[in-house]
Amino acid sequence: MKGAKESMKHIAIGQAGGPTAVINATLAAFVRALYKDHSLTFIRNGFEGLAKEKFLQASDNVIDNILAHEKVPGASLGAGRYTLSEEQISQSVQVLQDLQIDTLVFIGGNGTMEAMDKIKDEAIRQHYQLQLLGLPKTVDNDLAGTDHSPGFGSAARYVAQVTRDMGRDLLAMNNFEQVRIIETMGRNAGWLARASGFLKEYENDGPHFIALPEKPLRPEILFHHIKKATRDYGVALIVVSEGVCLDKGSQIERERVNGHSVLGGISKEIENKVNEHMNVMVRAELLGMNQRSCSASVSATDYTEAIQVGSVGARWLREGATDVMVSLQRSENTAYESVFTPVSLKTIVQSGERKLPAKFLNDQAAYNEWLSPLIGYDLSSYPPPLQRR
Amino acid sequence: MKGAKESMKHIAIGQAGGPTAVINATLAAFVRALYKDHSLTFIRNGFEGLAKEKFLQASDNVIDNILAHEKVPGASLGAGRYTLSEEQISQSVQVLQDLQIDTLVFIGGNGTMEAMDKIKDEAIRQHYQLQLLGLPKTVDNDLAGTDHSPGFGSAARYVAQVTRDMGRDLLAMNNFEQVRIIETMGRNAGWLARASGFLKEYENDGPHFIALPEKPLRPEILFHHIKKATRDYGVALIVVSEGVCLDKGSQIERERVNGHSVLGGISKEIENKVNEHMNVMVRAELLGMNQRSCSASVSATDYTEAIQVGSVGARWLREGATDVMVSLQRSENTAYESVFTPVSLKTIVQSGERKLPAKFLNDQAAYNEWLSPLIGYDLSSYPPPLQRR
Repeated sequence: MKGAKESMKHIAIGQAGGPTAVINATLAAFVRALYKDHSLTFIRNGFEGLAKEKFLQASDNVIDNILAHEKVPGASLGAGRYTLSEEQISQSVQVLQDLQIDTLVFIGGNGTMEAMDKIKDEAIRQHYQLQLLGLPKTVDNDLAGTDHSPGFGSAARYVAQVTRDMGRDLLAMNNFEQVRIIETMGRNAGWLARASGFLKEYENDGPHFIALPEKPLRPEILFHHIKKATRDYGVALIVVSEGVCLDKGSQIERERVNGHSVLGGISKEIENKVNEHMNVMVRAELLGMNQRSCSASVSATDYTEAIQVGSVGARWLREGATDVMVSLQRSENTAYESVFTPVSLKTIVQSGERKLPAKFLNDQAAYNEWLSPLIGYDLSSYPPPLQRR
Repeated sequence: MKGAKESMKHIAIGQAGGPTAVINATLAAFVRALYKDHSLTFIRNGFEGLAKEKFLQASDNVIDNILAHEKVPGASLGAGRYTLSEEQISQSVQVLQDLQIDTLVFIGGNGTMEAMDKIKDEAIRQHYQLQLLGLPKTVDNDLAGTDHSPGFGSAARYVAQVTRDMGRDLLAMNNFEQVRIIETMGRNAGWLARASGFLKEYENDGPHFIALPEKPLRPEILFHHIKKATRDYGVALIVVSEGVCLDKGSQIERERVNGHSVLGGISKEIENKVNEHMNVMVRAELLGMNQRSCSASVSATDYTEAIQVGSVGARWLREGATDVMVSLQRSENTAYESVFTPVSLKTIVQSGERKLPAKFLNDQAAYNEWLSPLIGYDLSSYPPPLQRR
């Protein structure tokens, strides 16, 4: 039995969804662990590549290139959002069967695990024995079944750093500009927006208010926080998650692609609302793609865990694990340590998006304690701002 | 004579214009060099503080706080854009005289040196002997009379890094989004936009085209570059300076405050133009205030020079220099070394904004050679992207 499990596999692997600063570390670690004694096929551009058979065979050059991308942001195989139709799923399983690919691995988030689960059901229907493994990745941290996902720690570190830096910039400009609305990623979950408060040490430093997608933002609440902060500190630094609904409105969609809603623009809506109702200079600051790609803000913990997820996944494949995702849990030791456990794809799909839990919605300190090991930041480096006159 | 020059001065110092990641290093170095044997008064919020007498006396706490801000972005005294009226200039000189402040120092850019020159003329008119010194600072590098200014190297490093990172992110997303328009600061000069090309090593990496404010951008040229890059590489990463005029249009003003034009929004104009004329997914990415405040991207050279500018300025004040700015020039040694020379405020004012010179407009390699020591970056770290099928 053990021998059978360890026979040479033909593994196809792809990256899907939005890139992160460390998704290539997961891929490189996975490939490094397997390329010498297993056959590897690389899928370009995520599920689109699976549907359209954009495959790349492992050659020395390709392997070298993938390993060399270990510390490079983006997704070296190409990723991207793409939803497979039922027909494409059925065809894809047929193609895998034709190519004698017996193992399918994707690095991705919620949508990826959902697609993998569908592929699994289709393989069963076609009586094809396909081994399936998911490796977690998301900057939004909305993937269920895991304490956190690789990609999130670095994005959180970026958001925390730039919020602190931008707070000092705004304080310096308070005779010119009083209100800044920073918009973060996060989709329907407030994990990343809440990280903006991680480095706040002094009352006059921002953020002075964080709007999370878990509850609608009432304009009176927004105006109240802006008035209070500008009165007390001369400025108001407001952070808003892209998924926030203003008042009774709906989420702001930047666009809709292949049926997918791409959020973005709520900071501009808030800027307009503030301009209508208040006599202050206000500027919307959309943090943009840097959040998921900034090489200068990679968290050492996040990078290490991205590597570990790849090599643990490779080991589990050898051991025969299937239909699961590699999940990160915290060990019960006092010092932070991550433990890797399998979670079934079905469980992840059934759990849906993982929102910021109630205990973190209003408690920055509790959230900071949870976030601290993931972000790896020395808190003690900024002195207090000079007092206003 | 020497004794007279070295008697105790009463020095007022302020920071003006937009903050940078290293302007506090200049202030800290200046203060460290002088606070023990001279009297210091700090001016809050730039020239507004001078006009409205928002002064802060040096106490142990204030000095400690300013020194502790050495590595903190922003401007610890407060800065900001503020244009003094003739009447305010006259009053300000009167106030300096009343307070027996005999030395006035500002850290700033073009607008600051112009204001200092006017104050100098007014002091002469009032027969008040006022020693004046300017210390350079700008992320736009448009200040005349100096090879470059502290603040620019760190901003250039940030722009170069994020362009490279974002290029890899875009390549990974090419089945979803093909064109990204990155907008940089720079006002009317292309220094910062040109820095976006510094880390480009491979043809398929961006930027595929850089639009500089030194010449109007014709839509046909823009479309040509987008078509070519999307055809050859699957994506087009376009960088545009905030000061660029699209076709025969004028610069895009975000807003106008105290008669000052604040540029911003050309990337959105271009996004709209591309949407009208091409069938691609395009996204405008305004780099925003991170450019001038990102603590994670400070250049070691820039930080060191910001310190040097402060301590050289302090030494020159002791030696009696007046009506000058500390300028940075390159020594004629083979290895990069900066040399500090005085340039008269009048010369700076008469020279106007320093645009990107002709030799750098179309020659990225020549520009990179010039920029390299200021940005302090190891070029060799990204492998080439995997080839497209």
